[in-house]
This record gives sequence, C-alpha cells and structure tokens, in this order.
Amino acid sequence: MDQPRYPLHELQAFSKNVFLKLGCNEANATTGAEVLAESDKRGIDSHGIARLHNYVHWLTGKFAPANPEVAIIRQSGSTALVDGGGGLGIMVAPIANKICIEKTLASGTAWVNVRNSNHFGIAGYYTNLAAEQDLVGWAMSNATAQVAPARSKQPMLGTNPFSVAIPNPGKFPLMIDMATSAVAYGKIEIAKRENAKMPIGWALNHLGEHTTNPFEIGGKQKYSMLPVGSVKEHGVHKGYCLSAMADLLSGVLGDAAFGPFGPHFMVPEISPSPLFGPGLGHMFGAFQVEAFSDIESYQARIKEWISAFKRAEPIDENEPVLVPGEPEQFAMADRLLNGVPLNPEVVRSLRTISKDLGVAFD
Amino acid sequence: MDQPRYPLHELQAFSKNVFLKLGCNEANATTGAEVLAESDKRGIDSHGIARLHNYVHWLTGKFAPANPEVAIIRQSGSTALVDGGGGLGIMVAPIANKICIEKTLASGTAWVNVRNSNHFGIAGYYTNLAAEQDLVGWAMSNATAQVAPARSKQPMLGTNPFSVAIPNPGKFPLMIDMATSAVAYGKIEIAKRENAKMPIGWALNHLGEHTTNPFEIGGKQKYSMLPVGSVKEHGVHKGYCLSAMADLLSGVLGDAAFGPFGPHFMVPEISPSPLFGPGLGHMFGAFQVEAFSDIESYQARIKEWISAFKRAEPIDENEPVLVPGEPEQFAMADRLLNGVPLNPEVVRSLRTISKDLGVAFD
Repeated sequence: MDQPRYPLHELQAFSKNVFLKLGCNEANATTGAEVLAESDKRGIDSHGIARLHNYVHWLTGKFAPANPEVAIIRQSGSTALVDGGGGLGIMVAPIANKICIEKTLASGTAWVNVRNSNHFGIAGYYTNLAAEQDLVGWAMSNATAQVAPARSKQPMLGTNPFSVAIPNPGKFPLMIDMATSAVAYGKIEIAKRENAKMPIGWALNHLGEHTTNPFEIGGKQKYSMLPVGSVKEHGVHKGYCLSAMADLLSGVLGDAAFGPFGPHFMVPEISPSPLFGPGLGHMFGAFQVEAFSDIESYQARIKEWISAFKRAEPIDENEPVLVPGEPEQFAMADRLLNGVPLNPEVVRSLRTISKDLGVAFD
Repeated sequence: MDQPRYPLHELQAFSKNVFLKLGCNEANATTGAEVLAESDKRGIDSHGIARLHNYVHWLTGKFAPANPEVAIIRQSGSTALVDGGGGLGIMVAPIANKICIEKTLASGTAWVNVRNSNHFGIAGYYTNLAAEQDLVGWAMSNATAQVAPARSKQPMLGTNPFSVAIPNPGKFPLMIDMATSAVAYGKIEIAKRENAKMPIGWALNHLGEHTTNPFEIGGKQKYSMLPVGSVKEHGVHKGYCLSAMADLLSGVLGDAAFGPFGPHFMVPEISPSPLFGPGLGHMFGAFQVEAFSDIESYQARIKEWISAFKRAEPIDENEPVLVPGEPEQFAMADRLLNGVPLNPEVVRSLRTISKDLGVAFD
C-alpha cells in the first residue's frame, strides 16, 4: 500500500515551528529539526519526524529544558567532555559533534564525550558531517535499556547505535550506521502493524524464551531484545560486546548514566532514578584522512574498493551486493524527488501535535 | 579428552629460538614470540603457537624478511603512517602500536596506520597494552579474503579482527576482541577434527548455499565464510559493515592491499599479485581516560558497571552473564597455573619445526 508523500522541507519546517513554539531558540529549533529531517531523508523512518511526538512530550512535560546550558567541563587540544545540561540529544549532540570536528581539523584527531544528554537521533547524522570534511567520523550512544547481554534475559543495554563514516571525497561517504541490537525496535513495531510473525532471534518474551510473536514485546511487559548475532552460533556475544562498548564509552567514561540506569525515552515518567550520572551519554570521534594519504590517491582507492565490492558475485542476481551507505543513498534520491512517505499513525500524531500546539501542518 | 599441557614460558622460549634460528634479531624474535604466547595465554589457541609453522613458512620461503625495515612514512603529533617493510605482522605491528601509545601519552589521542605488513596475531594483544596505560585502545586489521559480503557468495573480506580495550585501572581491562565473521576459521577446523556438523550460518559451500558440512569449507574449494549475524534476520549486513570498516581503515586508508587483493596467509604462494598496495594493513588508535575523567571516579564507575552486568538475570543459572574479556581471564588463570593444552596436530607441527631447524622442543 502506497503511503502519502510529504515534501521533506515542509516536514522539516513543521518540526522547527513546533520546537520554536515550545520555547526553543532559533538555533536549537533549527538543529533539532535538521537532525530529524536527515533521518527521514535517509529512509530511517523510525528516527525521523515519526518521533517528534516523543520530543514534544519531553519538552511539554519539562523532562528537558527547551534551551539547555551546554558546557565544556574538561578539554585539551584533541579531547573534550561536554555537559548537555539535560537537553534533548538532537540539540545538544550536534554542538558536541561540531566541537569534535573543529578540534580534529586543528589537531588531526579528536574525541568528544557528552553526558547529561538524551536521545540523539541517528548516529549517521553526526558522522556524515565529519565525512563531508574528509574526516573519518565516529559516533555512538547509549540508550534506554531494552537489550539483554548474551546469556541473559534482562534488558541491560539500549539498542546502542554505532556509526563510522568513511569519506568518499566529493561524493557520499561509505556510511556504517547500525543499532547494535539484531534489529531496531521499529522493525518489531512494523511486525505488529502488519500482524506478522517475527523471525526467531529478535527478542525474548516474559519467560526469557525466543518468541515470534511481536505482541509479546514492548510496553510494560517483561521482555528483552537481542544483540546483533541473536544466537550463540551467529555471534550474539559479539553484538553484546559492541553494545557494551557503546555503553562504556558513552556512559561510563564521562559519568553519564549507564546500562539499565538511563532515562526512559518513550516514557520519561518511568525513568529509573539515575544512580550513576545524569542523562544519556554519547561519544564522537574523528581523524583526518590527510594524516595518512593525499586525498587524490585515497579517492582513487576508495573508488576501486566500491567498484570491486559492487562486482562481487551475488547469491541472487536480483539482489546485487551493496556497499555501506548505499541503501541510504537510494532513499535520499527517492525522497528528495518524491517526498517522504508517512504511515497513517505518524500523520495522526503530527495532526495531534499541530492541533495541541496551534502550529500549522500541511 | 584432556590434552597434554606445556608451560607457557617454554612455548614462548621455543618460538623465540625458532625466530632467532631463522635470522630474526633479538628484538624481533622476542616480540614475535610474545605475541604468540599472549594468544595461548588468553585461550585463543587458533592464533598462538599453533600458527608458528605458518610464520616459519613465511620466513623460510622468503615471503617476508626476518628483519624488516619499518619506517614512518608520514606523521603528526597524533598520527602516523608506518610502512612495515613487508615483515611479519607479529613483529611489525607491535612497533606501530607502541608509536600509537607514545603519541597518545603525549597528545591525548592518536591513530597509527600500518601498510606493507602481514598477519598480526590477536588484536587484543595490542589493545591490552594500551589499556595497561589507562588508555582506551583500538586495533583492527584486514586479512586473507574468506568472508562474503551480505548478499554475496564471493569471499571479499578477511575474518578482519576488531578490538577495543577499556581500562579497568589496576585490573584486567574490559576486552573486546572479535573476528567480524560469525566464527573464526579455527572453529570450522575443530568441527572437522571432531567430524561434527556446523550450525547453519557459518559458511556457504561451492554452490553458494548454507552448509552444515565443515568438509565443504577450506582448502582449494570454492567457499565463503559469513559475517557476524550470519543471516539477514540476525543482522548479517551489520557484520559485513564492521568487516568493511576494518578493511577500509586498515587497507584502503594508507594504501595497503584491500579486500580480495591481500596476500594469502596460509599459502603465500597463491597470493594474488597485489593490485592495490603492498601487504596487509592495520589500524591502531588510543585515547586517554584522563582526558574525560579523573581515574579514581572512573575506576569506581567501571566497578559498578561490571558488578551490575554480572548480576544480570541469566537464562540458565549454570551459565552466568560474563563481561567482555572474562573468558580470557579464566583462560589466563588456568594456563598460567596448569600450562597450555596443545592438540596432537599442533604438537606434531612443533616437533617437525624442531627437527627441521634443529631447535630443541621439550
């Protein structure tokens, strides 16, 4: 079923107007709307304007200030620890990422850690900005605990995203942007909407058993999602390690909350009292390609790499091999031309926001 | 069946004597033997003295010089590109990793890329050295192509290792050290020795189909191993992305060989003519914990993290949740006390080396 399409710039303008209406200043409203729009542009529908209602709830419920005080707590030429003032990640994290990029352009490499922040949208937004400056960019974050460690049935980790963007100078970077869970929670929501079974390996039910029933997952039920790899034979302990890395470097390093002690994004009312540090944490890193190669010869090698991998023999001739970031490029070409498809539930949530706040939508 | 045990220091001394006999100088022989011993100590039997015969073959066959000229090609305060002179990775890479650690201690962060190197042993050897200095350490490498990208049945990537060590000051670091394939090749070799079936998801046979028969994998047959995740439903595209990251940052960035164009470790005679750059590549990174936190409070938080995760509710009471690096710690405690178990095939290979080179073994 084809969904109605909306021009990207109109959705972005709506988000911005909503943030302005809720007291965000021009810079914060612009940034927040840009992060969401970048997600819709790249086809990552779960993290775009579909989540505007969550951010609205955070602001109207005073779970986050509209204009947080973002401060550098500790820094050197190539490092910084940033306190996000408890603000929304989509407004706080871009400031920290910018500091990371600036330090990298000056010093060759940098790492910037953020604490006292919140859900920062898609990790690829941040690394893409680094790659546009011919920097290899890193981004990771911790998140609301939904994922069980290997061997466990208790949610201890978020779907903690990990992104690396590898520049392809003058073109789209090779973009790695992944949840460290087997699937994003959005895929379970889709299974529910379609009344479909899930594959084994996405999640454990209240008994701690593998389930194919998506309605056993989510809400106030006991459940846990699974790390990349899903089962021992396919490397679930590796997915657990990647998620743990994101939690340790985003949360523990700079004294944000960690593991199960982070705030609850969907329902901030039920957040645990943060036992160890405020808010969620993020980690941004970058280094210059030019530190290792002149750009022209690097560019030629990247071109050869892409060409070699796209020629790799496919299992199914109708499904050619893709290089990292290619699915997002297809989505961008489509959405910039044809607009962003929104499912009816998302459209309803936008109309509700529009009515509640008196901000025009379409 | 219990395997005979050998004292670790005796195995390490044997490796060193072998390298000396083959013309390596004191420093190179010591380093090479240390990298192999660290692997045996940590229970990663596939990468320890079991592979001595491969390194011997590289040296006796003149595929690598006994004493490579290692040179810094390009550098800044926080970056370096190192040429390994075509030497063995277990002798070249430790030099580059040391440069990375020294630059990090001086500058806060660093990245060091290596080209014209070869198989470097376990990635965790390198990151552990960083973590011992209270640095977060990164290591990755590309490797002989055996792994197919998602959607493909053609081996284009190595089992490219990725390691991050997160310091636990004064104690063993939280150690993430993983092949980006679903399993290491060594596990397929074990299935062969035991005449056992493999689980679906480890490898594709000559038809590009999932197989449970380990004898369809390896040698001169057409086959491919699979990235972490193994199948689409468990996130194979994510494993592919991680392996691609290691290939791009280790191989493409600094002009080593990449993807399918790297040298063949087991049978260097059949290496492709390197089309794009010499040898394999590695990437090392590090940053100071102290850039983000004083060490005492960081240490307290790491302790809390470990304690929280070890208390996570297990699926099976007999299999408690482990934290990253814990399996290696168990192995270390056992092997330092009881020696390293060697399977009969490995013992035979060491006796052959002993006889061929006239270096005493046990």
